[in-house]
Amino acid sequence: MTARPEPIRGVLAPILTPFADDLSVAHDLFIAHARHLLSTGCAGLAPFGTTGEALSVGIHERIAALDRLIDAGVDPQRLIPGTGLTNLPDTITLTRHAVERGCAGALVLPPFYFKNVPDDGLFAYFARLIEGIPSANLRIYLYHIPPVSQVGFPIDLVRRLRAAFPAQVVGIKDSSGDWSNTRRLLTEVPGLVVYPGSELPLLDALSLGAAGCITATANINATALAEVVSLYQQGREAEAKQRHEAVKAVRLLVQEHGPIPAQKHVLAAWSGDERWRHVRPPLLPLADAAGRQLVRALEREHGLAPSQRTAV
Amino acid sequence: MTARPEPIRGVLAPILTPFADDLSVAHDLFIAHARHLLSTGCAGLAPFGTTGEALSVGIHERIAALDRLIDAGVDPQRLIPGTGLTNLPDTITLTRHAVERGCAGALVLPPFYFKNVPDDGLFAYFARLIEGIPSANLRIYLYHIPPVSQVGFPIDLVRRLRAAFPAQVVGIKDSSGDWSNTRRLLTEVPGLVVYPGSELPLLDALSLGAAGCITATANINATALAEVVSLYQQGREAEAKQRHEAVKAVRLLVQEHGPIPAQKHVLAAWSGDERWRHVRPPLLPLADAAGRQLVRALEREHGLAPSQRTAV
Repeated sequence: MTARPEPIRGVLAPILTPFADDLSVAHDLFIAHARHLLSTGCAGLAPFGTTGEALSVGIHERIAALDRLIDAGVDPQRLIPGTGLTNLPDTITLTRHAVERGCAGALVLPPFYFKNVPDDGLFAYFARLIEGIPSANLRIYLYHIPPVSQVGFPIDLVRRLRAAFPAQVVGIKDSSGDWSNTRRLLTEVPGLVVYPGSELPLLDALSLGAAGCITATANINATALAEVVSLYQQGREAEAKQRHEAVKAVRLLVQEHGPIPAQKHVLAAWSGDERWRHVRPPLLPLADAAGRQLVRALEREHGLAPSQRTAV
Repeated sequence: MTARPEPIRGVLAPILTPFADDLSVAHDLFIAHARHLLSTGCAGLAPFGTTGEALSVGIHERIAALDRLIDAGVDPQRLIPGTGLTNLPDTITLTRHAVERGCAGALVLPPFYFKNVPDDGLFAYFARLIEGIPSANLRIYLYHIPPVSQVGFPIDLVRRLRAAFPAQVVGIKDSSGDWSNTRRLLTEVPGLVVYPGSELPLLDALSLGAAGCITATANINATALAEVVSLYQQGREAEAKQRHEAVKAVRLLVQEHGPIPAQKHVLAAWSGDERWRHVRPPLLPLADAAGRQLVRALEREHGLAPSQRTAV
């Protein structure tokens, strides 16, 4: 009997997906970045989230990239890949693949094409998804990101799904940016593993039992983020708070520039590999001047560069 | 040398996708419904539009369903299938398949996951799509449906795409529901084939040179819709107007109930095949009582049933 998947506790990076000059997935950079993140503070990775430009990557590309990552030795029990599309058959294909490869879970968007759909319809969608993957190792993390997907998971629906499928619907990533929603998920849905989709409410969330957070900036700031969690766990609250303020400042700076192109620009600068600058349309790379300014600010004002420069 | 694809003129149905009891695509019903529509007034079909629950159907299912339709003898030159997803590789796969099967065109959504993306990013997306399908028979119809996809095609972007790719970007389906936008497309973008995504502005649009319309209600009201176009073309304006008022009333009635489940309910009633009632989650079937009321209203107040009942 294989061990059952367990929730990952700590900071998870929704790892950026690097592209080659022809915009195919750059597997070598992807693997190197994954290893770097896992060895510098990340407890886990959530490949193919919004930050990973998941919805800009084809279904077979996503399967191949996850295979390459795991085949290269990345522990699947530290991975919660995004698998949610707008349709059930392809979402089942991606989710089943993640389960078969031994991943800790799958981060599943609601079907996000039709808007204002009834909760009963979303419930039926997840019921069929679960029915389609009859594995004892299926662990679904609901991906709540209404600012992008427009369709989200109202609390009542989360509660219903959790009650109906306690073994499968184990957690949620809350990227609503709405602390009152995160707080309710943490306090009103028993047993739910909650990851805020940002470090901004990290300490408040940890104090209410959050498992950690899944945050875009872990791609460039994993070590400092992990320290916030670690200091908190050691009861060193004042230091945790101070460190938290510092990582929040980095986030706000990155957010100003559009976090995906901005962080890819930073990784290109730090790694010396220009491929990192590629994004897939409809996104556009960050302009040179803005990128240089961002890198300079991160290095001089936030002291971020040196450890990253050599390690990436 | 094969004949080049030509624009379809008249009424096109965004054909509903029927599902079997296990929610797989019911190919027999799909083929029968396509034949029925094409023989009772539709100049063409747009399979896998929003009304066809396209984004609820998997990529391989879509390819198979289009194959089955064409293999059953449906003329591909009367088909403009939807092929737009959120990512380029899979969108290229679907679009290339439509071209290879000899379709009149492909109806392509903008990548709709990321919101508020720059026009340059959408332009780059379509440039790469076109580059990825080096066929002289590629004909792209832009699918503008911001009420659902949230991401749309601003007029300036349409103009740029048309100017850069005059052989490939030939038309647009405008489902904005905004007549001023449709009017501008008809008058300000030279050579663009424009299909309003509804019959509501049909006569005004025809008077400005629209090729016809692509409207959901063609699934249950094709003959009357075709008559509006035909009367207009014969210069019988008063009769066209009268007929137009009648089809608009049908549309408004259907819209009240959610057009997809409502029309599937109607087709189930008229064909006697209960499979027609199935929708895929996140949509839900229409409740029995509402469905019965709708069918009764269509039959008694709008005189719609008899010709359909035997033919479907």
